[in-house]
Amino acid sequence: MTIDFGSDNWSAATPAVEAALSRVNTGYAPSYGEDELTARVSRLFCDVFEREVAVLFVATGTAANLLCLQATARPSGFVLCSDQAHLYNDEFNGPEFFTGMRLVPVATTAGRMRAAALHETLGTLPPAGDRGPLATLSITNATEYGTAYTASEIAELAAVGASLGAAVHVDGARFANAVAATGDSPADLTWRAGVDLLSFGGTKNGCWAAEAIVVLDPAAYPDLSHLRQRAGHGISKQRFIAAQFEAYLTDDAWLTTATHANAMAARLAAALTADGAVRLEWAPTTNEVFPIMPTTTATRLRAAGARFHSWRVRGDEEMVRLVTSFATTDEDVDEFLALL
Amino acid sequence: MTIDFGSDNWSAATPAVEAALSRVNTGYAPSYGEDELTARVSRLFCDVFEREVAVLFVATGTAANLLCLQATARPSGFVLCSDQAHLYNDEFNGPEFFTGMRLVPVATTAGRMRAAALHETLGTLPPAGDRGPLATLSITNATEYGTAYTASEIAELAAVGASLGAAVHVDGARFANAVAATGDSPADLTWRAGVDLLSFGGTKNGCWAAEAIVVLDPAAYPDLSHLRQRAGHGISKQRFIAAQFEAYLTDDAWLTTATHANAMAARLAAALTADGAVRLEWAPTTNEVFPIMPTTTATRLRAAGARFHSWRVRGDEEMVRLVTSFATTDEDVDEFLALL
Amino acid sequence: MTIDFGSDNWSAATPAVEAALSRVNTGYAPSYGEDELTARVSRLFCDVFEREVAVLFVATGTAANLLCLQATARPSGFVLCSDQAHLYNDEFNGPEFFTGMRLVPVATTAGRMRAAALHETLGTLPPAGDRGPLATLSITNATEYGTAYTASEIAELAAVGASLGAAVHVDGARFANAVAATGDSPADLTWRAGVDLLSFGGTKNGCWAAEAIVVLDPAAYPDLSHLRQRAGHGISKQRFIAAQFEAYLTDDAWLTTATHANAMAARLAAALTADGAVRLEWAPTTNEVFPIMPTTTATRLRAAGARFHSWRVRGDEEMVRLVTSFATTDEDVDEFLALL
Amino acid sequence: MTIDFGSDNWSAATPAVEAALSRVNTGYAPSYGEDELTARVSRLFCDVFEREVAVLFVATGTAANLLCLQATARPSGFVLCSDQAHLYNDEFNGPEFFTGMRLVPVATTAGRMRAAALHETLGTLPPAGDRGPLATLSITNATEYGTAYTASEIAELAAVGASLGAAVHVDGARFANAVAATGDSPADLTWRAGVDLLSFGGTKNGCWAAEAIVVLDPAAYPDLSHLRQRAGHGISKQRFIAAQFEAYLTDDAWLTTATHANAMAARLAAALTADGAVRLEWAPTTNEVFPIMPTTTATRLRAAGARFHSWRVRGDEEMVRLVTSFATTDEDVDEFLALL
Repeated sequence: MTIDFGSDNWSAATPAVEAALSRVNTGYAPSYGEDELTARVSRLFCDVFEREVAVLFVATGTAANLLCLQATARPSGFVLCSDQAHLYNDEFNGPEFFTGMRLVPVATTAGRMRAAALHETLGTLPPAGDRGPLATLSITNATEYGTAYTASEIAELAAVGASLGAAVHVDGARFANAVAATGDSPADLTWRAGVDLLSFGGTKNGCWAAEAIVVLDPAAYPDLSHLRQRAGHGISKQRFIAAQFEAYLTDDAWLTTATHANAMAARLAAALTADGAVRLEWAPTTNEVFPIMPTTTATRLRAAGARFHSWRVRGDEEMVRLVTSFATTDEDVDEFLALL
Repeated sequence: MTIDFGSDNWSAATPAVEAALSRVNTGYAPSYGEDELTARVSRLFCDVFEREVAVLFVATGTAANLLCLQATARPSGFVLCSDQAHLYNDEFNGPEFFTGMRLVPVATTAGRMRAAALHETLGTLPPAGDRGPLATLSITNATEYGTAYTASEIAELAAVGASLGAAVHVDGARFANAVAATGDSPADLTWRAGVDLLSFGGTKNGCWAAEAIVVLDPAAYPDLSHLRQRAGHGISKQRFIAAQFEAYLTDDAWLTTATHANAMAARLAAALTADGAVRLEWAPTTNEVFPIMPTTTATRLRAAGARFHSWRVRGDEEMVRLVTSFATTDEDVDEFLALL
Repeated sequence: MTIDFGSDNWSAATPAVEAALSRVNTGYAPSYGEDELTARVSRLFCDVFEREVAVLFVATGTAANLLCLQATARPSGFVLCSDQAHLYNDEFNGPEFFTGMRLVPVATTAGRMRAAALHETLGTLPPAGDRGPLATLSITNATEYGTAYTASEIAELAAVGASLGAAVHVDGARFANAVAATGDSPADLTWRAGVDLLSFGGTKNGCWAAEAIVVLDPAAYPDLSHLRQRAGHGISKQRFIAAQFEAYLTDDAWLTTATHANAMAARLAAALTADGAVRLEWAPTTNEVFPIMPTTTATRLRAAGARFHSWRVRGDEEMVRLVTSFATTDEDVDEFLALL
Repeated sequence: MTIDFGSDNWSAATPAVEAALSRVNTGYAPSYGEDELTARVSRLFCDVFEREVAVLFVATGTAANLLCLQATARPSGFVLCSDQAHLYNDEFNGPEFFTGMRLVPVATTAGRMRAAALHETLGTLPPAGDRGPLATLSITNATEYGTAYTASEIAELAAVGASLGAAVHVDGARFANAVAATGDSPADLTWRAGVDLLSFGGTKNGCWAAEAIVVLDPAAYPDLSHLRQRAGHGISKQRFIAAQFEAYLTDDAWLTTATHANAMAARLAAALTADGAVRLEWAPTTNEVFPIMPTTTATRLRAAGARFHSWRVRGDEEMVRLVTSFATTDEDVDEFLALL
């Protein structure tokens, strides 16, 4: 038996996404986004974000991040991002290769940067005359640590970025979880808060490969389409990405699955800490829980078939990461708790 | 009514590919290629190529090409490729961005480079001491012009490349069509002929997004996996690429669909030229036909609902491109001929 | 004995330049262009160009070219340049590495592009929707072939570039020779003709290493200083570059040396063709002569100690390149003619 | 009156260097390093390093560093360097642009990294499977903080680098000061200690623009010459760089000037701390002194005409940097002390 909290990208796709893929698997459609479905789904994004946005589909979240950073790159520039950011830790120095810029990690609390930490980090850079500009502020929402920024928190950070001349990017690989957790609207979490570019993820929340760059002020980044094609990130049979997003966005399916994943994590967190065998350094609001438990316990759980990542070992304790998704069931949670 | 010869990437996916995608759409699997299906399908590639090969899945043919070129890049280096090559004409200068090298186009006959043309092109470069090395020879097989190289033709070109110290890459976006057309084996068309790296395409021949970099001598290119991740071309739910390839390669499905596409093109070519209203500058052996017809005829066909690309207009004549695929039916051909 | 027509960069520096270098070789001066001499010499450039310009000193002409191209780069972009351009033939694919763009060579007559050739070359590119933008038009003046463009010729080419949205760059490694040959002013040959960026050379005309990027509209390229520093092209003891340029520009010394070099070439060309043993395909107006002579003659001249580059061998004839400089004397010319 | 401790690159060139430049300022010489003087001076380097080395001249120390890093670059790779390294703090993110790699700063004590700190820093990276390789270890010797590594200290660090598969680079912008301070030979400080590539500086120690990349195992980096040309760092009239180095290396002139500069710094340090008005956190052994003094004192010194950089202000104290050079005189030191 396997209980799987390995990652939300270990899940499959939702039945709705699978059905949508089957539905468009017929006939012919112009390639590289010239198809009708792409046009229709782009309108859905405009509805979700309550304004005209430009949307560029890609197959991976790293692609979305790299292209957003590249679009904002400036010579000798810097990117401020969280020290837990996916693009800092998990993208194999793609940001440096694509932009020639330096990433400057900002200390986080429960995965979140605070305005004070931004200022503190900026203070460690050489004075402005002796270096290039701060080109980009990148914020991950939901964070890599199972937490989310509210719209007003995003706005506070974005204001710092803007005051320094930086473009503001949000890595929203788990954007749905942030919307579901905060109750703030996509518009409030992005352009109304001062965000310029969003990596909008579908893959971790029930698509099988569907990511979008959402350009919140389309006129500001006219070269993104060329950047995408140049990097080999234009998908020829793009209707298959569009179809996933159609299923994803229709009837708020994306929020339903994200709400479910968040709820599963909350239930897990509550139960885990109920009897004190396990503790949490912070409470999750999205779909990741980081319990600290005796290493012997973690080892026993793995031996019993539970799958999850180890995050940190300190002394005879281990912090592990449990990720829920649309596919997580109450039974999964119960079985895991029973094992524990 | 629409008769569609627009492109083989305007087609959908085969039922077998769709079924395979549905089959793996369940449960959990480790991401980024750590899943069992990826391992199993990699073995299939070794069987197809009759040797140990390394396989890296990506979502686009351009990605495969760019990463192969990047793996072979050398400072101040040059890439020789056909003047009709996709990577020369249709990849938005991605090769220059990814490699810093210059592409040098070689004149072609019916889409094919000949050894003499390679030598002639080399003669136009500055002498070896005044420039960087020839790093890469890239050959498209099947070509962009509906023709294919035999194994011995590939070997002849590869020998020129090797004699100059160049790595040899084959852009096989339509590799299946080349195998089907020549009857030569994948091994004979690649490593036995001196090819180092292959972009192996599935998308144009019945997958919806499945491309692979086949490293024919795995020890020679150890950095490819990092190159792929760095460029955002690692797919998190990679089993969905692997599943497509499993359906594609099992029971020679890929050769069945390619053989069908080639046959449809041959039938089209034969019928088109039968009554002399249309002529061909070269006979297709794979799945693209380039008839030359009066512009009035082309215009009339489009108005009647036929879709295809215009390639060249000269005087009152137009060369158009008709692409067949696994999805092309005898009825499509008949209807087109009837329209004509 | 050696008669040296190898290249104008085989010459030494003028006594005035040497004296200026000695004069500043004392005391201390702030580094990286913060010194007073740099400020003063920048004013000289404004005088020469009859407007406010920004000036960035570098040590090589290739550096100037690369940084100008980089400043004008656009994703998936193209650079149009002469098929004889130094940056196309002699810069080791630095333009591709620095910009990620493709260089498109334009056919030349006696080293000069014509507007018709620009249009013809543009016609060979894919249609605008299928490729990136034309980012840059680069014109070499004086050309690599001993000829120069007049201000009106530059304006005609620049107008074509501008109509396509391209920035206009002039590689002026031999700009002095062009000014001397045409009698047109630096302003007329650049910004009044629509030029945006100029690589202004001193090295080939009597400095030992002094090149400048002249930004004709300083507000348009604010990142150039960062581009220069990032590429390691900022000179710490920059006063030594500034000193060369002070000597170079004062009292029109640069035009005096260029006029002399041009005159020596003219004298050489006239004498060479006087008795018909040698012929010229075009008449030089600057400081390079390309006589065509029997190979036996060229071989004999070399054996007798004359140094020059071979340009083209065809049948039993050889086109050679003879380059004059400020250092060429009447005696050098006479001795060469006597040898001949 | 000015007392100048601003930087060793605010100095002029030594009379010997000036004389050498004048001496070669005659006649003609092949360009781009094909001249006899370059060949002769390359032999001098072999003598200094007691083995066959390859030498590539460039005009700036940043160029030397960038090209060395680029020669050692690997996809997704990392560079370990001191958190005070010039290439980390003062090269405008050129390393990121040239290599696509990430720089990881290592904590220092008095400007020096220790093996323990290397290991500690490595421990902060993701595990080896989740990231690219450690490509390069870069060590600055003499350091940016007026200290130097001995040969055995270099060997200890290099051994850590080598054990991780990294190439070892030394930024020797002040290499002469390190040799003079430690008494260790150039060979012992480099290849015998496991160093692969050296940026060998002349500019800060009495040249006006002369830097060299010393390839300690020439066969290992065959592409460096192309890297240099491609980046515009090949100097056409290279004899003028070679001439500086000939004067620099002949009769150990470079060690004489460095010994002098070091001695001036030692004298300054000793006198500064004699009466307790000023303190040092570490004792200099090369040519930079970092006294901590009341801000009022620093302000008063500047007002009196002393030039130096401010390094750190904390409370009402200021750490300043005083740099000596070949040009510093006993009188300069005395006057500064008198002012104080």
